[in-house]
Amino acid sequence: MKEYVINVDILLGQVRAALERGDPRSAAALIEALRPADQAGVFDDLNPEEQDELLPRLKVEDSADILEELEDEDAAELAGRMRADELAEILDKMEPDEAADLLGDIKPEKATRVLDAMQDANEVKPLLKHHDETAGGLMTSAAIVLKTGMSAKTAISYLRKLTPDEEDIYYLFVTDRENKLKGVVNLRSLVTNSPTAKIADIMHEDVVSVRVDADQEEAANLMKRYDLLALPVVDVNDHLLGVITYDDSFDILEDEATEDIYRLGGISEETPSDLPLGQAVKKRLPWLVVNLFMALISAAVLSLFESTIAQMAALAAFFPIVAGVSGSAGTQTLTVTVRSIALGEIEPKNALKVVLNQFGLSLINGLIVGVIITLIALIWKGSGLLGVIAGVATLVNILSTAVTGVIIPLAIHKFKSDPALASPIIVTALTDALGYLAYLGLASAAIAWLI
Amino acid sequence: MKEYVINVDILLGQVRAALERGDPRSAAALIEALRPADQAGVFDDLNPEEQDELLPRLKVEDSADILEELEDEDAAELAGRMRADELAEILDKMEPDEAADLLGDIKPEKATRVLDAMQDANEVKPLLKHHDETAGGLMTSAAIVLKTGMSAKTAISYLRKLTPDEEDIYYLFVTDRENKLKGVVNLRSLVTNSPTAKIADIMHEDVVSVRVDADQEEAANLMKRYDLLALPVVDVNDHLLGVITYDDSFDILEDEATEDIYRLGGISEETPSDLPLGQAVKKRLPWLVVNLFMALISAAVLSLFESTIAQMAALAAFFPIVAGVSGSAGTQTLTVTVRSIALGEIEPKNALKVVLNQFGLSLINGLIVGVIITLIALIWKGSGLLGVIAGVATLVNILSTAVTGVIIPLAIHKFKSDPALASPIIVTALTDALGYLAYLGLASAAIAWLI
Repeated sequence: MKEYVINVDILLGQVRAALERGDPRSAAALIEALRPADQAGVFDDLNPEEQDELLPRLKVEDSADILEELEDEDAAELAGRMRADELAEILDKMEPDEAADLLGDIKPEKATRVLDAMQDANEVKPLLKHHDETAGGLMTSAAIVLKTGMSAKTAISYLRKLTPDEEDIYYLFVTDRENKLKGVVNLRSLVTNSPTAKIADIMHEDVVSVRVDADQEEAANLMKRYDLLALPVVDVNDHLLGVITYDDSFDILEDEATEDIYRLGGISEETPSDLPLGQAVKKRLPWLVVNLFMALISAAVLSLFESTIAQMAALAAFFPIVAGVSGSAGTQTLTVTVRSIALGEIEPKNALKVVLNQFGLSLINGLIVGVIITLIALIWKGSGLLGVIAGVATLVNILSTAVTGVIIPLAIHKFKSDPALASPIIVTALTDALGYLAYLGLASAAIAWLI
Repeated sequence: MKEYVINVDILLGQVRAALERGDPRSAAALIEALRPADQAGVFDDLNPEEQDELLPRLKVEDSADILEELEDEDAAELAGRMRADELAEILDKMEPDEAADLLGDIKPEKATRVLDAMQDANEVKPLLKHHDETAGGLMTSAAIVLKTGMSAKTAISYLRKLTPDEEDIYYLFVTDRENKLKGVVNLRSLVTNSPTAKIADIMHEDVVSVRVDADQEEAANLMKRYDLLALPVVDVNDHLLGVITYDDSFDILEDEATEDIYRLGGISEETPSDLPLGQAVKKRLPWLVVNLFMALISAAVLSLFESTIAQMAALAAFFPIVAGVSGSAGTQTLTVTVRSIALGEIEPKNALKVVLNQFGLSLINGLIVGVIITLIALIWKGSGLLGVIAGVATLVNILSTAVTGVIIPLAIHKFKSDPALASPIIVTALTDALGYLAYLGLASAAIAWLI
């Protein structure tokens, strides 16, 4: 049995060594011995010149696998450097949905020339017209479709005849004469039923499908909810247009989670750590500038209390504590809310219940943290009053996050925007400003006893 | 064709109405008409009394589906209220891995009594001894295993005989006489090959497997990397012990993403928004307290510069700007690093390259943000010098996050801890403190020209 974990670095070294000593054939053989995901892993780490030297030596099937497994941008870059006829030959061996995605990522004129040179262009063309992030953009053409009138035996010999190269078949969808989706047969019941049984009798009629214009996330969620390996895509009249397979839904769910993580971290989109500088600046700078202007609210509050600070500069020592701890509490509440919304666990209609729940939690946490702050002030600065003021300000501020941390993401969600995107900035800015207001407001009122 | 999106609220109302008018049989019929995931969805929203009234009226198979689909804690709570013999009957109809998980979640004495009452206890018992978060804890017993010497025809009739109730079969694993894993046959090639072909000849020998004691994340990543529907689990001598199916890897990858999101948000574990108060406090308070003590570093820096602040209280207005913008920049870098580590995109060995990359990015972002801050100070406070000081302090601070935001998570990862857990606290605290130090340090040095 082959070891399943390959050491990409060692292999990369061997491939490079073969290329350097002018032996691209050996380099190709090393790559061809790997599984597709590993082939792409090694190939991706080569530099463009090495890739261009190696590619013509690989079997067309292997090149197709590599183009499927590479990240979209890397595949498009590589394809952009290839001749139209070479590319067409490889695309013919790719899954139609992957071929369509790649064609959508290269220059339109080139895509047209490649399509003209392809043999299976008819399988790919219908997939090109759907938006990338819809069910239609995700589906592949349904290669094997059974008809209600077939017998199990006919269906099996039909399968034998069609048997495509490497493609796995999970479910066999059944349509009527007008190509309307009628049911689904799984391969096992085809095998284990009597050969004379009619497909119409052994199929399940209760088949979950998705409309071609539905959002890709809806498709992925359906597949996850019902543990489906394949989801048929239909038009408004239930005509079967294609199939989404489980590996796509896998990728989407992971991408959506990554997107949420990035947005909560203040980055508009996925930015791999090796993104070109210009693009990375474009994705991160706007957030910093927005944050900067939101911080002006707090700056204005501090300016308002300049004379109080001038009277007692020691007040400043507690700024990071009041603002920092409340900021953390706000981020916690926000994170729970945003993830719960993404997983479909909370809705605007039960907002009040969630706020009350978070309020109770914030009250307990705020009281305990407030007491600790008071003690710190007493020990460090010898002032119980200063401590009480900082502690109460923190408590008030933490309580406020129970409201803002729930209401703001829910409101953004209600208006069909992504709550992970803008909530952190707004909640943080409000929490900060309110913290300074509460702390310095109380300190101003008590300034005579403080100094 | 049945509508695939059900309205849980409407159905819940109907089920409740039936229960209230003393007609649990109709209530059960409403639930039985749904798909398992929807059955669990409606059932979960009923209160305990309603659940207990309904459960005995459901078919055992449906009860088994519901227990499989419910969240672990909800299933354990429900199981805890059932009689041992009732529960045993339902567990017999569940997938062995799900049954084992549930038994691990209820009281040990009760689990023993339930196991004694079960018919399929032998399938479940071997699964109980593996740790929850390992490949062994995830696998289910491999119900159907082919032998190398079988013919395709024998294998098919063997399948016909064994055909289990509802379980999907994706791959058929092949072992030799000693139960050592030798290969894999997919159902399609069994069907499409000649009936007399030997299994040893049509199987793929290149089968990916995972050791029983491997981490569950490793198993899920293998399945994702190689697009596997099922992953065989073996012991150190390659004996086949069980199989992990794709739906498990789905759940793990989503759970791991959720865990990262929560940890980056400063919460130690997944905390649904409706978690009981005591548990929620336990999961969130420790982080606030740690944050509080980390904020003392900044507090100490501010104390150090008390006399500077006393001389010019207007300096305070720029605290939230310097600290806030740098904090955002640090969170951005941190988020990219933590997610890249989770997705296996960066390793300690290429840390320097990533730091340099982030440094370039931070330099551009820091310069632009710094200039904006200078302009704000000039317009708002009429002081170009104050602006330059705040701007330079922010630039220095943003540059520092290019180092801390990469090195700290990578170091934590290197020491086998989760970088999402502690990095945000450390990076934020350092960024904050350094920001105050740079800003107030420069201001002190230039105080004669400022006031």
